[in-house]
Amino acid sequence: MSNQPLPSPTQDFSAWYNDIVYRADLCDQSPVRGCIIIKPYGYEIWEGIKGALDMRFKATGHVNAYFPLFIPMSYLQREAQHVEGFSPELAIVTIGGGETLAEPLVVRPTSETIIGESFAKWIQSYRDLPLLMNQWANVVRWEMRTRPFLRTAEFLWQEGHTAHATHDEAEEETLQMLDVYADVAVNVAAIPVIKGLKAESEKFAGALRTYSIEAMMGDKKALQSGTSHNLGQNFAKAFNIQYLDRSNQLQHCWTTSWGLSTRMVGAVIMAHGDEKGLRLPPKLAPHQVVIVPIYKTDDEKSGVMAAVESIKKQLVSGNIRVWVDRREDLSPGFKYNDWEMRGVPVRLEVGPKDVANNVVMAARRDMGKEGKRSLPQENLAASVSALLDEIQANLLAQATAFRDANIFDVKTYDELKQVVEAGGFARGWYAGDSSDDKRIKNDTQATHRCFPLEQPGGGGECLLTGKQAEKLALFAKAY
Amino acid sequence: MSNQPLPSPTQDFSAWYNDIVYRADLCDQSPVRGCIIIKPYGYEIWEGIKGALDMRFKATGHVNAYFPLFIPMSYLQREAQHVEGFSPELAIVTIGGGETLAEPLVVRPTSETIIGESFAKWIQSYRDLPLLMNQWANVVRWEMRTRPFLRTAEFLWQEGHTAHATHDEAEEETLQMLDVYADVAVNVAAIPVIKGLKAESEKFAGALRTYSIEAMMGDKKALQSGTSHNLGQNFAKAFNIQYLDRSNQLQHCWTTSWGLSTRMVGAVIMAHGDEKGLRLPPKLAPHQVVIVPIYKTDDEKSGVMAAVESIKKQLVSGNIRVWVDRREDLSPGFKYNDWEMRGVPVRLEVGPKDVANNVVMAARRDMGKEGKRSLPQENLAASVSALLDEIQANLLAQATAFRDANIFDVKTYDELKQVVEAGGFARGWYAGDSSDDKRIKNDTQATHRCFPLEQPGGGGECLLTGKQAEKLALFAKAY
Repeated sequence: MSNQPLPSPTQDFSAWYNDIVYRADLCDQSPVRGCIIIKPYGYEIWEGIKGALDMRFKATGHVNAYFPLFIPMSYLQREAQHVEGFSPELAIVTIGGGETLAEPLVVRPTSETIIGESFAKWIQSYRDLPLLMNQWANVVRWEMRTRPFLRTAEFLWQEGHTAHATHDEAEEETLQMLDVYADVAVNVAAIPVIKGLKAESEKFAGALRTYSIEAMMGDKKALQSGTSHNLGQNFAKAFNIQYLDRSNQLQHCWTTSWGLSTRMVGAVIMAHGDEKGLRLPPKLAPHQVVIVPIYKTDDEKSGVMAAVESIKKQLVSGNIRVWVDRREDLSPGFKYNDWEMRGVPVRLEVGPKDVANNVVMAARRDMGKEGKRSLPQENLAASVSALLDEIQANLLAQATAFRDANIFDVKTYDELKQVVEAGGFARGWYAGDSSDDKRIKNDTQATHRCFPLEQPGGGGECLLTGKQAEKLALFAKAY
Repeated sequence: MSNQPLPSPTQDFSAWYNDIVYRADLCDQSPVRGCIIIKPYGYEIWEGIKGALDMRFKATGHVNAYFPLFIPMSYLQREAQHVEGFSPELAIVTIGGGETLAEPLVVRPTSETIIGESFAKWIQSYRDLPLLMNQWANVVRWEMRTRPFLRTAEFLWQEGHTAHATHDEAEEETLQMLDVYADVAVNVAAIPVIKGLKAESEKFAGALRTYSIEAMMGDKKALQSGTSHNLGQNFAKAFNIQYLDRSNQLQHCWTTSWGLSTRMVGAVIMAHGDEKGLRLPPKLAPHQVVIVPIYKTDDEKSGVMAAVESIKKQLVSGNIRVWVDRREDLSPGFKYNDWEMRGVPVRLEVGPKDVANNVVMAARRDMGKEGKRSLPQENLAASVSALLDEIQANLLAQATAFRDANIFDVKTYDELKQVVEAGGFARGWYAGDSSDDKRIKNDTQATHRCFPLEQPGGGGECLLTGKQAEKLALFAKAY
C-alpha cells in the first residue's frame, strides 16, 4: 500500500510487472521454490475466469471429474514423446507414511496418462462415445525460471480430456474448445487473441496437432493463453483406449486435451495494465465499483455515509459488485491511487455537495480526468451498468488497436529481425521446419508462435528459405 | 450397470456401501494406493456441497485464496502437537526437476503452518483483524485403511483460516462456522447433525478446542462430517502472528481453522441410501428429475419424444435439473432400476396414454408404489418443484426420526456397552478423561464423539467413573 509510483511499463515492463502483482495485492511470495500464494484479490479474478469457462464447458456437453494428484512413474513412460517432454520438470514423491515407496509417484504435470488408463476401462463401444470430461486441478512442473502467474512450479488450471470415434470428431472438438478459449479471452477478459496451429517444434509432447490462442502483451511480446490438442491415437494406443464400432470391430479412439491456467491472470495484468497499475475488465473485476466517501466533519460524515449506504444498496440490487472504502486514516487521494493500482473499473466519489445535489462523481479507470462525470443518484444502477459495459468494450478496443498496430508483415528474414528487435509480431509466408524455427529462435529470441487459422489464401515465398510457402506464420518474443 | 440387487444394507452395510459407490457411478478405483477417481456423477454432488458452502463463507465475510501444495518439512515441526499428529501420514517429495531437494517438501495434509507464516507477514495491527480466509484444495494423508469418500489418501476439501484479536472473537468465529456446516448438512444435504465439543482425546493436533458436527449413518454409526477448531494462540506463537493493539502493544493473535471435505459425499450416501441404491436430496441431486420415455412402435416414439422434449423444456425453464434417458437398447424397467440406484429424486414416465391425456406419471424415489401419481402436463414445473421440496423435507424427516430413535440415554458403563453392541449412539453424564476415553474405545470400539452443545443443564453421576459430571457425552462406533 505504498504510494510510490510503479516502474514505467514502457521503460521496464518486466520490473513493472514484478511490482504490480504485489502492489495490486494479487499474490505474494511463498517459502516454496517457484510457488506463489494467490491472494484473495488475485484468486477472485481466477474465479471469474473459471466460472466463465465452466459454464461454457457444461453448455458444450462436458462434465467435471477428479483424478488423483499422483501418477505412477510407469504411466508417464508409456507414451514416448510425452515422458521425454515432461521428465525434466517432475516433482516426485518417494516417501509415504514413513516408508520408501516401491514405485515413486509423480505429482501430475498434466493428467493424460492417468485419465487415459480410466478411459480405457470406461469405453467399451461406440455408444460410450464421445466421452467429454474436464478437471479443475493443480499441477506441478519444476520450472527453472518462474514468474508470478506466468510460470510457476505449481499452478491451477483446467484440463479437458475427451475421446471420440474418428479423427474428424476429435479435430472438431479440439477446435470447438479453442473457440471457447477465444470467446472467454475476448468477451470476458477483453483480450483479443489469434487462434492458430502450433508448429511441430512447439506442439504438446505426444500430440498430433496443438492449437493455441496467442495474445499480445503491453510490451508487444506474445503470451500463449490456452492450448487445445488433437492427440490423435497416440494416447489411445499407449493406454489401449478402444471401442467396438457399429460393425463390431475393435478400434482405437481419437482423443483430445485442452487446458487454460492461472497464467490467464497474468495475461489480464499485462494486456491492460498501465503506469498507474492494473486495469481490470469489469466482467472479471472483484470490485466493479469502489465508493470513496469524502467528508471532514462528523456532521458531513453522517450525511455522506447514509448516502453511500443507499447507493451501495442500489448498485448491489442491480447485481453490481461494489466495495465501500471505509478506511478512516487515509486521505481520499491516497485511496484513489490505491484503487487505481488495483484496477477497479469505476470509482464513485461521494462528498457533501454530491449528497446535497443527489449526484455522485464517477471516474473511469480506463480514462483520465476527461472521463469524470457527475451522475444522478436516481437510476444509478442502470447508468453504472452502462458505464461498465462501455469500459469493457473500450478495454477490448484499446488492446485490439494496440495489437493490430504492432503486427507487421515481413517478407525477409532481415525484416523479421527488425520487427522482433523493435518489438511486435512478425507475420510472413513461411515454409521452414523445426530446425528453421530453432535457428530463428537462436538468432532473434523470437519463437514461431503459430500458423494463424485465419489465412489470406494463396501463397508466397518463404521469408527464410525462399521456398514456396502456403501459410503465413507468426513470430514473436514470448513469455 | 448390472441389474443385480445390492447387498442388503441391514445385513451388511459395509458391503452395501462398497458396492453402491461404484454401481451408482460416483467413483472408480484408481491405480494409486488409497486414492479414488471421483466420477462426474459423484463430483457434481461435491460441486453442490461446495457451492452451498462457498456462498455462506462469502456471506459471512470470508475470501478465497490459494496457498502452495508443498510445505517445507521444517514448518510442520514448529508446532509440536501438530507435527506429532500428522507425521505418520505424510507424503514427501524428495526429488524435483531431476535433483534431490535440500529440504524435502511435504504434500500438505492441511495448511495451518504455511498459512500461519503468511498471516504473520500480512498482519501488522488491529486494523488488519479479523483476517478471514478460505481455501478450496486437495490434501494428502497417507491413511493405512481407506474407503471411497470416507477416508482416502488424497481428498478434496475447504480449509478456513482466520485470525482475531481476542480469544472470544476466535471462539465466536469457530462456532459461527460450525453453524454454517450444520446449516448445509441439515438444509442442503438433509442430514440432521449434532453440534458438539470434541473431547481432549479427539481434538485436532494443535488446537485449543475442536468442535464437530456428528451425523448418524444408516448402520447407526457416527460420521464426523465437519470440524471447526479454535487454535488459541498455539499457531500464532509458533509462527509469530502478532498485531499492534489500539494501545500500541504487540499481541499474539488468536486463530481458527475449519474444514469440510468430500467425506460429506459419503455421508449423503450412508444417511439416505436404501436397498435399491442411493437416495439423493433434491438440492444436491445432479439430476433432480429423470424422464423415461415409453414406446413400442416408431409412431408411438415420435409422439412420446415430442411430449418429452416439451416437458423437458418446461422443467428446465423452471430451473429444474432434468435428464432424459434416451437409451434405445434398454427396457423401461431396467432404466427404472438404474435411476433408482443413482438416487434421482423424481422419475417421470411418459407413454402414449400419458401423451393422449396430457399427463405424466411421477414416481418418488423416497416412496414406493404408493407415491406414484399422475400429474397434468400443465404447470408441471410448479408441481414438480413442490414435489422436490416435499422429498427434500421427507428425507430430512426420515433421517431425523431414524437418528432420534437410535440415541439412547445410558446411566452405566454396562448400558453404554449394550447400546454400542446393539447399534446406536449412547448418551450419558460423563466426567472421564482421555485415558477413560481410550479405555472405552478399547473395550467397545466406540469413541467419545462429543459433548453436545445442547445440554439439559444440571448434572449427574458419570456413567464410567461415578464422579459428579456436568455434561452429557455421546459415544458411538464411528467412521
